[in-house]
Amino acid sequence: MKSRSRLAALFTAVAVVALAPAAGQAAPDKALEARFDTMIDPAEMGGWLKTMAAGPIHVGAPHNKKNAEMTLTQFKSWGWDAKIETFWVLYPTPKEVALELTTGAGAPFKATLSERPVPGDETSSRTQDELPAYVAFQGDGDVTAPLVYVNYGMPADYDALERMGVSVKGKIVIARYGGGWRGLKPKLAQDHGAVGAIIYSDPRDDGYAIDDVYPKGAARPAQGFQRGSVMELPTAPGDPTTPGYGSTKDAKRMAREDAATILKIPTLPISYGDAQVLLQALDGPVAPAAWRGSLPITYHVGGGDAAKVHLKVVSDWSLKPVYNVIATLKGRQKPDVWIVRGNHRDGWVFGATDPLSGHVAMMAEAKSMGALVKAGWKPKRTIVYASWDGEEPGLLGSTEWAETHAAELKKKALVYINSDSNARGFLGVGGNHALQHFVNAVAADVTDPQTGVSIRDRLRARLAVQGAEPGANPRAVALGKIAGDPARDLPIEALGSGSDYSAFLQNLGLASLNVGFGDEGESGGVYHSAYDTYEHHSRFVDPGHAYAGALAKITGRMVLRMADAETPVQRYADVADTVATYLDEVKKLAVTRSDEAQVRSRLLAGGAFKLSDDPTMSRGDPAPFPASPRIDFSRLDAALAKVKASASAFDQTLASKAASLTPAQKTRLDAALLPLEQRLLRDQGLPFRPWYKNMIYAPGRFTGYGAKTLPGVREAIEERRFDDASTYIGLTAEALSDYAAGLDTATAVLNGN
Amino acid sequence: MKSRSRLAALFTAVAVVALAPAAGQAAPDKALEARFDTMIDPAEMGGWLKTMAAGPIHVGAPHNKKNAEMTLTQFKSWGWDAKIETFWVLYPTPKEVALELTTGAGAPFKATLSERPVPGDETSSRTQDELPAYVAFQGDGDVTAPLVYVNYGMPADYDALERMGVSVKGKIVIARYGGGWRGLKPKLAQDHGAVGAIIYSDPRDDGYAIDDVYPKGAARPAQGFQRGSVMELPTAPGDPTTPGYGSTKDAKRMAREDAATILKIPTLPISYGDAQVLLQALDGPVAPAAWRGSLPITYHVGGGDAAKVHLKVVSDWSLKPVYNVIATLKGRQKPDVWIVRGNHRDGWVFGATDPLSGHVAMMAEAKSMGALVKAGWKPKRTIVYASWDGEEPGLLGSTEWAETHAAELKKKALVYINSDSNARGFLGVGGNHALQHFVNAVAADVTDPQTGVSIRDRLRARLAVQGAEPGANPRAVALGKIAGDPARDLPIEALGSGSDYSAFLQNLGLASLNVGFGDEGESGGVYHSAYDTYEHHSRFVDPGHAYAGALAKITGRMVLRMADAETPVQRYADVADTVATYLDEVKKLAVTRSDEAQVRSRLLAGGAFKLSDDPTMSRGDPAPFPASPRIDFSRLDAALAKVKASASAFDQTLASKAASLTPAQKTRLDAALLPLEQRLLRDQGLPFRPWYKNMIYAPGRFTGYGAKTLPGVREAIEERRFDDASTYIGLTAEALSDYAAGLDTATAVLNGN
Repeated sequence: MKSRSRLAALFTAVAVVALAPAAGQAAPDKALEARFDTMIDPAEMGGWLKTMAAGPIHVGAPHNKKNAEMTLTQFKSWGWDAKIETFWVLYPTPKEVALELTTGAGAPFKATLSERPVPGDETSSRTQDELPAYVAFQGDGDVTAPLVYVNYGMPADYDALERMGVSVKGKIVIARYGGGWRGLKPKLAQDHGAVGAIIYSDPRDDGYAIDDVYPKGAARPAQGFQRGSVMELPTAPGDPTTPGYGSTKDAKRMAREDAATILKIPTLPISYGDAQVLLQALDGPVAPAAWRGSLPITYHVGGGDAAKVHLKVVSDWSLKPVYNVIATLKGRQKPDVWIVRGNHRDGWVFGATDPLSGHVAMMAEAKSMGALVKAGWKPKRTIVYASWDGEEPGLLGSTEWAETHAAELKKKALVYINSDSNARGFLGVGGNHALQHFVNAVAADVTDPQTGVSIRDRLRARLAVQGAEPGANPRAVALGKIAGDPARDLPIEALGSGSDYSAFLQNLGLASLNVGFGDEGESGGVYHSAYDTYEHHSRFVDPGHAYAGALAKITGRMVLRMADAETPVQRYADVADTVATYLDEVKKLAVTRSDEAQVRSRLLAGGAFKLSDDPTMSRGDPAPFPASPRIDFSRLDAALAKVKASASAFDQTLASKAASLTPAQKTRLDAALLPLEQRLLRDQGLPFRPWYKNMIYAPGRFTGYGAKTLPGVREAIEERRFDDASTYIGLTAEALSDYAAGLDTATAVLNGN
Repeated sequence: MKSRSRLAALFTAVAVVALAPAAGQAAPDKALEARFDTMIDPAEMGGWLKTMAAGPIHVGAPHNKKNAEMTLTQFKSWGWDAKIETFWVLYPTPKEVALELTTGAGAPFKATLSERPVPGDETSSRTQDELPAYVAFQGDGDVTAPLVYVNYGMPADYDALERMGVSVKGKIVIARYGGGWRGLKPKLAQDHGAVGAIIYSDPRDDGYAIDDVYPKGAARPAQGFQRGSVMELPTAPGDPTTPGYGSTKDAKRMAREDAATILKIPTLPISYGDAQVLLQALDGPVAPAAWRGSLPITYHVGGGDAAKVHLKVVSDWSLKPVYNVIATLKGRQKPDVWIVRGNHRDGWVFGATDPLSGHVAMMAEAKSMGALVKAGWKPKRTIVYASWDGEEPGLLGSTEWAETHAAELKKKALVYINSDSNARGFLGVGGNHALQHFVNAVAADVTDPQTGVSIRDRLRARLAVQGAEPGANPRAVALGKIAGDPARDLPIEALGSGSDYSAFLQNLGLASLNVGFGDEGESGGVYHSAYDTYEHHSRFVDPGHAYAGALAKITGRMVLRMADAETPVQRYADVADTVATYLDEVKKLAVTRSDEAQVRSRLLAGGAFKLSDDPTMSRGDPAPFPASPRIDFSRLDAALAKVKASASAFDQTLASKAASLTPAQKTRLDAALLPLEQRLLRDQGLPFRPWYKNMIYAPGRFTGYGAKTLPGVREAIEERRFDDASTYIGLTAEALSDYAAGLDTATAVLNGN
C-alpha cells in the first residue's frame, strides 16, 4: 500500500555522520554477488508481473489465491522449503455502495463508483471480481445529510472550520486525498460528529494537473478513484478482532463492535469526475487558499443545507482466509539466526505496481538464490522469504504472522527487509540507523540501469542538485550538503507505517529495512485504481522492468551479505548521531510550542485576531494554548551520551578485533546483537496505542504513514500533553540506556570477556 | 494602475526602529483636523464615483475629458485656483486586433477579445468607446507562428525553457499574468527572438480559483481580460518620444521607431476562456509543476508545430491630448514651499476601483480644505492637488508635468503624496523613510471604519497575527515581532513603480509617499477589465465607500500637517536604520551569489545535473555562473556610518531646540531640508536606465513595479555584473555622504550657525 508521497520522502532523515571505513565488516563475497546478478532477468520479471496482474488480487479474489499457489510452486521449484500459512481474518467486502447528491445544484446526481475500461488497456476491461469504490474497515451505514468540504480532513482543517463557524456534526464530510493518511480522514470526521465521509482524488494531486491522464499519460483519469483501508493503523494494524495475537483459525475474537480500529461511520472514495458535481453544489464560505484543488470551480466549504447527499455502504463482515507464502533456505552454520525478507502480494485491483512490481523482484532474488544453492552455495544463516497476503486492508498477513510467531522471531530474526511498489528512479531506504552504513555500501555496489553509475552515486547527485535549487527548503539544503561530500554516507529515513515492516519493527522491535526505487516512473495517478495494470506499469512506471532488476540486486545483496557476514554489518555510531538530531529537533519543538503559547496568549489578550480578521466573515478567536512548562530533557541527554560512548566503543573495538575473533566469539556476538534493537521497546507502548512499543520509531498518530521519531516525546509536545512528554522522556531514556548496556555487552564479547 | 499584488506588498520593509517621542515636531492642529473630518462624506464620494465611472475613461475617451472638466469645475467651486494643463503624447489606440488558433486541436478558433456585459451590472453594457483586448505600446504586427507556453515569461522561465530544449525564436509566446510586471513579458519574449506575445489571466491568479466569478462573486469571469501598458517602464515612464522633457504641444519628438521604451512585437491580452483553447492545443513537455495554473487541463510547454496561432495588431499612433487638472491653495507664510498631492483619473474602461476610488478621496479632501479656507483657515505652505491623466499607458500625465516643471519642483516641492486604487482593509504606505514616523503618527489618529480602533492599531494587529501564523515566512515573522511591540513604529515600504510618484521620487528626487487601503475588499478579478464598475466596486471592493473616507482622512491629514508644520515632521534615524537593513541584505546576497557559483561549478564538474535528471526528458546542463569576486562594501559602510551619526545629531538637536527656533531659523530649516532627498540622486542614473537617478529606491529591472533598494548595487549583484556593483557602491556611498552633509547643514541651522 506504499503510496507515492511515501516513497518520495525516503532517504531524508538528516544525520551527520562520517564515512568510516567498514573495517569491522568482512568483505562481501563479490564473486557470489556477480553470479547472483547474472540470474536477475527483467524480462522474466515482466512475464511474472503480467501473469500475476491479469486479474483482481484483493483478499478473497480467486486470482489472488492463484498467485499464492503460483508463488508457492515457484519457490518450491527453485529449491526452497515453502508452504502456505493461512490466517482467518475479519475482512469486509462491499455488498452495496451508493452515493447521490439529493439536494442542490446538479441534483439528483448518482455517483458512478466504478471505473470503466480505458482504450488500449486490455486489463482494465477485466471487470469480473473487481471491487467497486470501497474502503475497508469503514463503518456501514445509510445516511442522508448536508455536505461539508473539509480540505484534507486533518486536525488543522477542523481548527480552521471551527474559526469559520462551520460544524460537521450530523453532516457528511468530503475530504480530498493527501495531507495525511486516508484512514485519519473518516476517523477525525467521526470524532467531530460527522455521520459519513467521502474521500476524493483531486486532479491537483494526481490528476490532469500533474500529467496527461491515462491512457494518454500516467495520471488519474476523471473516473478513477483510490480504494484503500481506513482501519485505524496508527492505533494498531492487523485483524481488529485479534489485537496483539495471531488470527489463527480458532483464535478467540472480540465482537466487531468492540474493535478499536474499525470506524463507525460509512465512508466511500470517489473520483474527481463525481466529486466535481458534489463540490459545485456547496454554499458557504469560499474555501481558504490552501484548501483549493485544481477542479475548474470555486471551492466552497458548505455548512448550510444547500447540498445534501445520501451515502450508503453495506458490507459482508465474514472471516476470510489470507494466504502467506513462507519459504526458507536453511542456514548451514547458524540456522537459528534468520534473515527475513518480504513483499505483499495482494492489491486493490490488478495491482501491477502496487505491490507486484516489488513482489517480482523478490521472486527473482529467490530464484537466483535457489540456483546458487543448486550450484553448491549455502547461506550461513537461515533465509526466510515471505509473500504476504492482506497487506492492503491493514497489514493483515504480515501482522498476524508476526504476532503468531512473535516469540520465535524475537529470538531468531536478525533483520526484516521489506519492499513494496517499485518504480523507475532513485533508491529510497528507510530503517534502523545501525544499518545505514550497510545500506550505503550495498547501494555503492549496484549499477543504476539508466545512467551506468552506482545507485548511490546517482542518488548522491540528485540530493546535491536538489539542495542547490533556488528556494530549496532547509532539509533539502542540509541533505544536499551531506550528499555533496563524497566521504559521507547518505542518510536513511526513519520508518513510519504503510507497509509490512510495521509489526516487525514497531511491535517486535526487530531491525528492519524498507527498500524501493521511485520518483521518476512513479505515478500516484493510478494508485489503488483499476488502472494500475501491467499495461500502465510497463509503459510509465518501469519500462523494461529495469528497476525491478535493480531492486532485486539491492535487496538480494542485503540478504546475501547479512546471511553470510562473518562479523556484524551494523555501525552504531550512526544510531547515536541520528538520535542526537532527533533530540535536537524535539528540544527545538518544545521551544516553539512555548513561544506559540505566549504569542497566542498575547494576541488574544490584545484582541488582535478580531482586529485582524475580515469583519464580513464570521470568525471566532482561536482557542488559547495551555501554558508550556519548561521541559527537562536531562534524562534523555544522559542516556544519549551513554549510547554515544557505547556505540563508539563497540565500533572501534570491532574494527580492531574483527580479524581475530574466534568462532565462539562470533556466535556470542550474533547472540548479543540480534536482540539489541528490541531494547528500544517499552512494554507499555505509546499513549493511546500500546501496540506500538518502539520508543524511537513510530508512524504518527496524525500522519498515519509518516514517521515520528522519539514518538512518545515528540507527539506529546506537538499535542501539548506535557505530562506525557515527561513520562516518555523517562521511558525513552530508559530504552536508550538499555540499548547502551546491550552494546557494552557486545563490546565485552569482542574483548573476550 | 496599481495592481492587487502591489498593494498587498506595502508596509513590508523590515526596519528596526525605536518609537521615539516626536519631540521635535509641533503638535498637529487636532481641532482643525476634526473639522476637516466632518466634511468627509462617503455617500458624496460614492455619488462622484458613480458619475465618473459611467463611461470608458481611457486617454482620449470622451467621458475622460468630461471627468477632467467636472474635476476642474468642482475644484474651482471649492475655492481652489484650478486649471487644466494639457500635454500632447504619443498614445496608441487599437485599429485592428485579431487572434486565431489556425493549427492544432480545436482549430480553427477565433479568440473573442471583447468582454460581454454581465447580468446585473448595467455599466458593463455601456460598450460604446470601450477598448477591446489591447496593451499600449506593444509593437504592431501580423504574424502566424507556433505557440510556446512560457509560464510568467520571466528570466528564470527562459532558463528553464533552455534546459528543456525549447526555443521561442520565431514563435509566439503565451504567458500568464503574474510573477512580474506585464510589460516585461513581451519584452523578454522579444529579446529571446519571439515574433509575438499573448498574455492571459489564469483562473488560479484572479479567476474562479480565488472566488466566485463576477457577478456572483468578485473574481474574473471566463471572458474577462486585463488591459494595460507594456511600455518599458523600468527604463523610463512618460511619452517614449520625449525622454526626459515635457511633451508640450510643440515639443521636439524622436521617431517612434527610435523610442527605447516601445516594443517591436505584436502583443495582446486574452481571457482564460480563450487561453484554455490555445493551451489545450500545445504539445511538448508537460509544464513544470510551478508553471501550472487552474485550468482543467494538463499544461504543456509546446515547442513543436502542433499549435499555431495568427496574431494581428494594428494601432493608430497619432498624438493625443492628456488633461491634467492642477489646483492650488496658496500658502500664506511660505507660498514657495509646495505640498503636492495627486491621483490619476484615467482608467482602462470604467475604472471605478482603478483609479476613481482614490480620485474621489482626493476630491473629498479638496472640498473639505476649500470649506476650511472659506471658514478662515489658510495653509502656511502652498498645497497643489493634481488629477493626472494618462497614467495607465505609462504615467504620462504626471511624468510629462514633472519633467516640464522639473526645475521649479526641485526648488519648491517638499513632498509628493500619491494615491491610486483603494479598497476595504488595511493601510499600506510606501515612501521615503524620513517620513515613516510621520506616517505612523497620522495612522494613529484616524479610526478604522470597520473596527473602531485606529488605522495603525488594526494594521499592527494584522501584522502581529500574520507573523504568528504557522509557516509564516521570515519577513512576516520579523514584521510580526515589530508589530507586536506597541512602542515601535510600523515600517513603511520602499517605492518601486506602478503609479504617479515615479517621476517625483526617482527622477526628481522629491520625498514621496504612496498611500492606500486594501487586502480585504480588493479583487484582482476585474483589474483593468470592463467589470471594474461602480456596481462591482460598491458591492465588493468598498461597500459604502467607507475606506474612501478613511483614505481622505489619512492623506488629507498628511497634507494638512505638512502644510502647517511649525518644525519638520521628518525623523532621519529611520533612514539610517532602514538603509542599514538594505545594506545587510545586499551583503548577504553577495555571499549567496558567490556560494551559488561555487556549488554550480562543483555540480557541473561532477556531472551531477545529468545524473540527477530524468534521462527520458531531454535536459541540458545549466550554464555555469561567472566566478564571484570578493565585493568590497567598505565605502558604503563608511557612508552609512556618516548618515547614522548625522541623522542622530539632527533628530536630537531638533528635539531639544524645536521650541526655541526663530522664524528665520525655521525658514532656513525648510530650505535646508526641502532638497535633502534630492541628494540621493546621482546624475548618471542606473545602468541601462539613466532616467532613474535615485540610488536608494527604484523599480526592479525585472520586477517592473516591485522596488529594489540600493538598486545600482543590488541588481548588479543579482545579475552578476560585478564591475557595476563596485561602481555603484561608489556612487551610492557618494549619495549617502551627500545626504549626511545635508543633514549636518540642517543641524547647523538648528544650532543657530
